[in-house]
Amino acid sequence: MSPSALVEALPAATDTQVATITSRFSVNGVPARRSTAPKISGALAPSASSDMFKGPQKGKPTSKNWDHLLSEESKSRLGSTLKESAKYLATPGLISLGGGLPTSEYFPFESIDFKVPVSPNFTEAQTQETGQTLHIGKHDYANDKSLYDIHIAFNYGQATGSAQLLRFITEHTEIVHNPPYADWNCAMTAGSTNALDMALRMFCNRGECILSEEYTFVSAVETAVPMGVKVFGVGMDEQGLRADALDEMLSNWDATARGHKKPHVLYTVPTGGNPTGTTQSFQRRRDIYAVAQKHDLYIFEDDPYYFLQMSEYHSDPNRTPPAQPESHDEFIASLIPSYLSMDIDGRVMRMDSFSKVLSPGSRVGWITASAQIIDRFVKHANVSTQNPSGMSQLVLYKLLEEGWGHSGYLDWLVHLRKEYSARRDVLMRACDEFLPKEICHWTPPVAGMFHWIGIDWRKHPDVGPVELDAQERKQLVLKLENYIFLHGIEENGVLVAKGSWFRAEQDGGENLFFRTTFAAASGEQIHEAIRRLGMTIRKEFKLDSQ
Amino acid sequence: MSPSALVEALPAATDTQVATITSRFSVNGVPARRSTAPKISGALAPSASSDMFKGPQKGKPTSKNWDHLLSEESKSRLGSTLKESAKYLATPGLISLGGGLPTSEYFPFESIDFKVPVSPNFTEAQTQETGQTLHIGKHDYANDKSLYDIHIAFNYGQATGSAQLLRFITEHTEIVHNPPYADWNCAMTAGSTNALDMALRMFCNRGECILSEEYTFVSAVETAVPMGVKVFGVGMDEQGLRADALDEMLSNWDATARGHKKPHVLYTVPTGGNPTGTTQSFQRRRDIYAVAQKHDLYIFEDDPYYFLQMSEYHSDPNRTPPAQPESHDEFIASLIPSYLSMDIDGRVMRMDSFSKVLSPGSRVGWITASAQIIDRFVKHANVSTQNPSGMSQLVLYKLLEEGWGHSGYLDWLVHLRKEYSARRDVLMRACDEFLPKEICHWTPPVAGMFHWIGIDWRKHPDVGPVELDAQERKQLVLKLENYIFLHGIEENGVLVAKGSWFRAEQDGGENLFFRTTFAAASGEQIHEAIRRLGMTIRKEFKLDSQ
Repeated sequence: MSPSALVEALPAATDTQVATITSRFSVNGVPARRSTAPKISGALAPSASSDMFKGPQKGKPTSKNWDHLLSEESKSRLGSTLKESAKYLATPGLISLGGGLPTSEYFPFESIDFKVPVSPNFTEAQTQETGQTLHIGKHDYANDKSLYDIHIAFNYGQATGSAQLLRFITEHTEIVHNPPYADWNCAMTAGSTNALDMALRMFCNRGECILSEEYTFVSAVETAVPMGVKVFGVGMDEQGLRADALDEMLSNWDATARGHKKPHVLYTVPTGGNPTGTTQSFQRRRDIYAVAQKHDLYIFEDDPYYFLQMSEYHSDPNRTPPAQPESHDEFIASLIPSYLSMDIDGRVMRMDSFSKVLSPGSRVGWITASAQIIDRFVKHANVSTQNPSGMSQLVLYKLLEEGWGHSGYLDWLVHLRKEYSARRDVLMRACDEFLPKEICHWTPPVAGMFHWIGIDWRKHPDVGPVELDAQERKQLVLKLENYIFLHGIEENGVLVAKGSWFRAEQDGGENLFFRTTFAAASGEQIHEAIRRLGMTIRKEFKLDSQ
Repeated sequence: MSPSALVEALPAATDTQVATITSRFSVNGVPARRSTAPKISGALAPSASSDMFKGPQKGKPTSKNWDHLLSEESKSRLGSTLKESAKYLATPGLISLGGGLPTSEYFPFESIDFKVPVSPNFTEAQTQETGQTLHIGKHDYANDKSLYDIHIAFNYGQATGSAQLLRFITEHTEIVHNPPYADWNCAMTAGSTNALDMALRMFCNRGECILSEEYTFVSAVETAVPMGVKVFGVGMDEQGLRADALDEMLSNWDATARGHKKPHVLYTVPTGGNPTGTTQSFQRRRDIYAVAQKHDLYIFEDDPYYFLQMSEYHSDPNRTPPAQPESHDEFIASLIPSYLSMDIDGRVMRMDSFSKVLSPGSRVGWITASAQIIDRFVKHANVSTQNPSGMSQLVLYKLLEEGWGHSGYLDWLVHLRKEYSARRDVLMRACDEFLPKEICHWTPPVAGMFHWIGIDWRKHPDVGPVELDAQERKQLVLKLENYIFLHGIEENGVLVAKGSWFRAEQDGGENLFFRTTFAAASGEQIHEAIRRLGMTIRKEFKLDSQ
């Protein structure tokens, strides 16, 4: 079935549903909604839920039930006796000698001040000059100075994360993604890698398999494999995962030949995918979602690069840079809709991360999924990570809520988009200048921080006219890849990542790729590194040096 | 076999070994050792190991190998391709376009200042007056102002935690525990609950079982059960877990009757155990270690309350308070040795936590174990939590390393010991005053934050002369427990924890217990809460009110 045929197969209601939700929640709606909500509690480790902060979800369907897809481990989770006994704490006049929460008297931290930029002056130099200092006192809540303080954040918390930061995250999720079913919820995570570890244990028993892009985030594969969960790769094109390849694979699944029963989980990085830098178009996402509906697939949407969607690349540096969005609504509208935003079944666990947009060291991210799935996730986290670092949550809360607000945060994301676009352009221009086009090919990425360079190994001088078999091709690719990788480091001082590292099926593959990134090095260094990479490839392929 | 017979069965070398390691590393030795060590790298996410910071371990044996005890999951872990490719980063002149580490230019945090106490003025009031402010700049490392900064800590890290904080933790572990085998290592954790989740997955396959105290930390049971790991409880006395009961249980293990093959893991909370507040004596620990050797048990030593070892309780408030240790060495010598400190086989994974001594919200703890076990643990963490919050690590590093140093931290721990002793005394005196001694019994805890109150349910007026069977006894205990628990909350406004919550085997048990804590409430509240508890118990047992 072709992708477009699949879309036609979607129930008519679906299209309408997605299209008719017009009264979207926006930044401007935040104050009004909050003004009628109860004050956030200052109790220690109180339970929290996105339902406390969401708007009315009328007209939306409720999510499907996923009992039949959950693992034995997840189905048997009863939750945490101690965390749940916290419900009695609301009894008026109660003195608790119940929970072993230490008193904040013994947290040796009196106050914290930290300096952050003020919109729109986001650069380091500007921050030094015009930044604002945010102050956190130990007992700010009791003193009516803030809803969150050291007394609360530095104690134990709940697996959802604190109500204080969860409110911001829930509102942000509704503003950006507006999930089209009613019972969606958010829960914080100790980073998306940890969330994936837990999600795999929720949905997979030992001996099962999942699907992902053919070239995928290698840590995801390394997370799954020791659990006895095999990852099969789905064919890709310049838009990443192919819906037709996914449908074909599932429609013709041969459990005996594959050694695994038909999978029920798809792991995908839809935007600026790691390592290929590819981004699924809106239509592609709808096609894949339809395939997921057809085959009862649950989708893990790992989307840390969502806000690193860049302006289009133009090779001419003198061209006027593309206009930036003029409003937050325009910015959000310019982003390709997420799976979450089209998820009428509640079959998506979306994983969001602050790592690529604020700080990887926070180890705070969040997932959004149906209430049932969030409940399973939280029950695991309560007896594992317990809650993401309260120190991190407090710093993020102060910055996002009291420093910037939703508006300032969106400004920051627009700033990042501009910065990453400029970095991407430097790398692209260097590739245009230094890589031998007769053997290298690439598509300029429109999102993320990675650039994927393919090399036509058939043009290597040692490749003769005799057709190699698959095994020989794979061996040759691995050998060439290793030469270029090591010569790059040892002779020319450039480190790039090997394409074979990222194979879902860890078999090397028959194509030669390298991943580069424009995330970290300076413009000058990027330019020089690509010059060195070009030199290395030219030498290996015995091409004239430039 | 009696415990003392077991100790005699230990090889003679063992006793000598433990006794003859005399040249212990102490706080005073830190500067000399550091002066000859290489400077800690300022690179992003470099690998780190305790071996970089340990002293010479000559004369110590190496640990045993634990391959035969590891789970299928753990044995199959290959580690993280991306984390391990970091080794090339040390190549001089190299430009890396390899790892997707974002540049710190896009971390919107310029500096952090926070106020902490200066030893010995540790109270909140003193901190406000005489506290010091610690300053963190974004690029302190590059500017030669500190070994750790926002640029490093707010980026990705390694699963061991940062070298900067790992150095302090390793030194601290050597000063306090001085493990008697050579190849011990530390790795940070995202809290001990998370460490236990991972440790169970390292050592247990689905369908296996482990042992713990009969009354144990309920979250540990709730962590294990969904993994298909059953917890069997070992008999206890006023010193906690009984070595003879453990030996008897294992010597006569009937796999068919138990439905599980003989366990190879013991989970124990040796100091101020949760919920019973019991503390294993040195001799008891040696006895249990000998049983572990005899039956090839691996020990999870979960010891968050180690530094909450208190002075002895005396009921007379007018008695001169016990003298505090006069030196750090004296303080450390006053602590009951840990399992780690007697672990000549490397059969202990010790879990340490900052939750009870600095802040639960840090979600930073650490484990100490043999190199093999740390390697397995780190390989899991690299594809799960990745690393504990860098924000937390940075705050802890600044406080412990640059604010207090080892000396100040030990001062703080002595301060906590004094504070907790005083709180414990308030609770004990209230129990002496308000609980009906004709039915209530307890042992004053010498460590931790919990107090365990037993009630002789046989003295309840509804209990007749007819002997009840085990099932009836359990039902009656649960019923009485629930009455007292709910009447405490609803009628008298006091919340305590039910003893049955903490049963390893979750069967209710035949004895009636309540757990109280002196960790959180004020002295006045503790006094009032115990008065209310006494009232509730008296009413239920139809005793005269006071």
